Amino acid sequence: MRAELVAVGTELLLGQIVDTHSAFLSQELSELGIDVYFHTSVGDNRHRLQEVVHTAVSRSELVIFTGGLGPTDDDLTKETVAEVLGVRLVEHPPSKQVLEKVFQKYGLSVPPSNYKQALVFEDGTVFANPNGTAPGMAVTVGKTTCVLLPGPPTELYPMYHSQVRPFLEQIRSDDEVVVSKVLRFFGIGESHLVERIEGLIQHQDNPTIAPLAKEGEVTLRLTAKAVNRKQADAMIAPIEKEILQSVGQYVYGVDDETLEKAAVRSLAEQGKTVAVAESCTGGLLAGTLTSVSGCSAVFQSGIVCYSNEVKEHDLDVSRECLEKQGAVSMETALALAQGVSRRFRTDFGLSVTGVAGPQSVEEKPVGLVYVGVAEQGKPPRAYRFYFSGSREKIRIRAVKHALFILLECLRKGETTNEGI
Amino acid sequence: MRAELVAVGTELLLGQIVDTHSAFLSQELSELGIDVYFHTSVGDNRHRLQEVVHTAVSRSELVIFTGGLGPTDDDLTKETVAEVLGVRLVEHPPSKQVLEKVFQKYGLSVPPSNYKQALVFEDGTVFANPNGTAPGMAVTVGKTTCVLLPGPPTELYPMYHSQVRPFLEQIRSDDEVVVSKVLRFFGIGESHLVERIEGLIQHQDNPTIAPLAKEGEVTLRLTAKAVNRKQADAMIAPIEKEILQSVGQYVYGVDDETLEKAAVRSLAEQGKTVAVAESCTGGLLAGTLTSVSGCSAVFQSGIVCYSNEVKEHDLDVSRECLEKQGAVSMETALALAQGVSRRFRTDFGLSVTGVAGPQSVEEKPVGLVYVGVAEQGKPPRAYRFYFSGSREKIRIRAVKHALFILLECLRKGETTNEGI
Repeated sequence: MRAELVAVGTELLLGQIVDTHSAFLSQELSELGIDVYFHTSVGDNRHRLQEVVHTAVSRSELVIFTGGLGPTDDDLTKETVAEVLGVRLVEHPPSKQVLEKVFQKYGLSVPPSNYKQALVFEDGTVFANPNGTAPGMAVTVGKTTCVLLPGPPTELYPMYHSQVRPFLEQIRSDDEVVVSKVLRFFGIGESHLVERIEGLIQHQDNPTIAPLAKEGEVTLRLTAKAVNRKQADAMIAPIEKEILQSVGQYVYGVDDETLEKAAVRSLAEQGKTVAVAESCTGGLLAGTLTSVSGCSAVFQSGIVCYSNEVKEHDLDVSRECLEKQGAVSMETALALAQGVSRRFRTDFGLSVTGVAGPQSVEEKPVGLVYVGVAEQGKPPRAYRFYFSGSREKIRIRAVKHALFILLECLRKGETTNEGI
Repeated sequence: MRAELVAVGTELLLGQIVDTHSAFLSQELSELGIDVYFHTSVGDNRHRLQEVVHTAVSRSELVIFTGGLGPTDDDLTKETVAEVLGVRLVEHPPSKQVLEKVFQKYGLSVPPSNYKQALVFEDGTVFANPNGTAPGMAVTVGKTTCVLLPGPPTELYPMYHSQVRPFLEQIRSDDEVVVSKVLRFFGIGESHLVERIEGLIQHQDNPTIAPLAKEGEVTLRLTAKAVNRKQADAMIAPIEKEILQSVGQYVYGVDDETLEKAAVRSLAEQGKTVAVAESCTGGLLAGTLTSVSGCSAVFQSGIVCYSNEVKEHDLDVSRECLEKQGAVSMETALALAQGVSRRFRTDFGLSVTGVAGPQSVEEKPVGLVYVGVAEQGKPPRAYRFYFSGSREKIRIRAVKHALFILLECLRKGETTNEGI
């Protein structure tokens, strides 16, 4: 099934927002075994939208539109698709009731122009919208199915998961399922990884192997098409085994398991706790750990020690150390990790101190970062890194490496990570 | 000048990455007064790419391509554009030298197939790439100019700012300049804002007024086209004045000044310092403040007090308060703000305590958040909010409201923000 996506809205063409819906829908369709060949963004302009709709329905069997379902004159998606396909729009009583209820809540009546939101395709499918006034909808004419979804993410995502995905599962070829497994790597760059499994990548067929580098991590997505899930899993297994034999030491998780989820899970499994002391990452490390639901079982406390005074008074870093080696040093990283774990009586203490930039500090280069880890009953360890890029990028890299080091300590008792 | 953007790369159509280049380039072109009418993403497929190139050059005067300039067989942008435009590709000696130097560094010779990266359009323009092996390039045939840029952001952004932008400034109409001013709002929703200035929005011409809602904030972008900057500013001024008369109390900054930048700037101007104590935001508030370069003058320390124990022992919240009112309460927010400012001897103490979800806490609903602010010489104050959405969304909203409250206290001595 050949598909394409059309995002409607002038704000996209002005660059005010990024089209994230196309990436989301493309991933979803890929999992359903539907190939997406084009993404197009077009403004709230009748003529150009007509052109895009014409092109799309002439070359694709599935076209998914996002945006342009609002109540104003600029909202044209429905009318334009109906016109190009030669389909009538009719009033949908449940959607009309939703409109009226929403306005009643404010003691108002529905402005006449807003009633257009209750129009849907004759003989089509309607997707209810519990989070807004615009229903989604779909209609099939000849070999082409058009699906129209509201733009706001808070309306699109729930609608997609509860109604649109089942609809798509039903209209695509039922002969096969598509199963993906994502292997998550840390500590190896994309080109090196690809080089190490070059043979596998060159000869890929089914399953496919798709590498992706993002924010200092690399993933490999293995995707198999088969008659059922069991067969698809059986096709993926040998490829996964070969990959692990080659580069398994860099795999830290699978599918959606981020570094922070893996770290929190590992801590919870071992019944351990961690406290963090962070300087240049300024709260991001703790913030990342606490983004994991259920983290309170393993994470209770952190100190953002941006100044030397706080490092000294609150985390027991000796003044001598701060003056001689400096705040950005192996010794300070060690002392911070020990200090914070003692202070909050946790099994692990994790610290980050470095130069995020743009200015250098203590005459040390931008990007120099130390991560310290203290573990009950073991000598504390610290690791040095040289990161490049913007302040934001350096901080993100530092957080990820700190999480990875914690994870390795939990899993292996130590880390082989010597600084990338 | 009619423009469109084409992003090339199969990873886009698989949804593995989001096309952020189109938003970036659209914003830039908008500032240059160049109208962008379409964004298209297409895979590394010769046939489909040809189709897209044909369509683009037939309807637009400027087409900017990103991606597909690599050394592999999948990299087709250059060859396809040359073919469609009927332009020859010729070897560019400086680019060839770059290639050879890069491989020499590793003691290797250039693989024959990689030499294609040194080919450029005959009689075109070349944009040097100091961050990679693929030069950017441009060529004009008839009324259409095609610009080809490398995909990786670390290569595209520097090339754009240093060479491509000046090139575009030169090829667009020189008759006018385009000037934008962005007004940043907080504490008012997009629909209410639009309603309050409805007349201005309906009658907009030059300048245009573009509202945009993003992550709990709303911006209005005023854009004027005129013969010079002074005139453009003069056209914007009266519109801005009318807007401020109507909704000025919600404006906290202009252009790129985020809440955190405004807060840090305001603290610095007044020579004041702040410390933060955060529970449910778990480090994000401190992390956001410290993302501002130069924040160390005003921010030194924060405590992530995820547990009641830390709230009691490190921030002096009374056990009675924690047991009777609970960690998520007005009283605890006040005590945390006072506790952290006393502890670190800062002018301001800022606290956040709440229920980020997905579980409720102390039988209090997900989304209930208190922000406390303590200021030397004034009684501490706390504010209650009810946020909706995911854990991530609630945490982001809490951070923004905390920053806004701090900003208001700095500017006005208090805030009228009663919780949105």
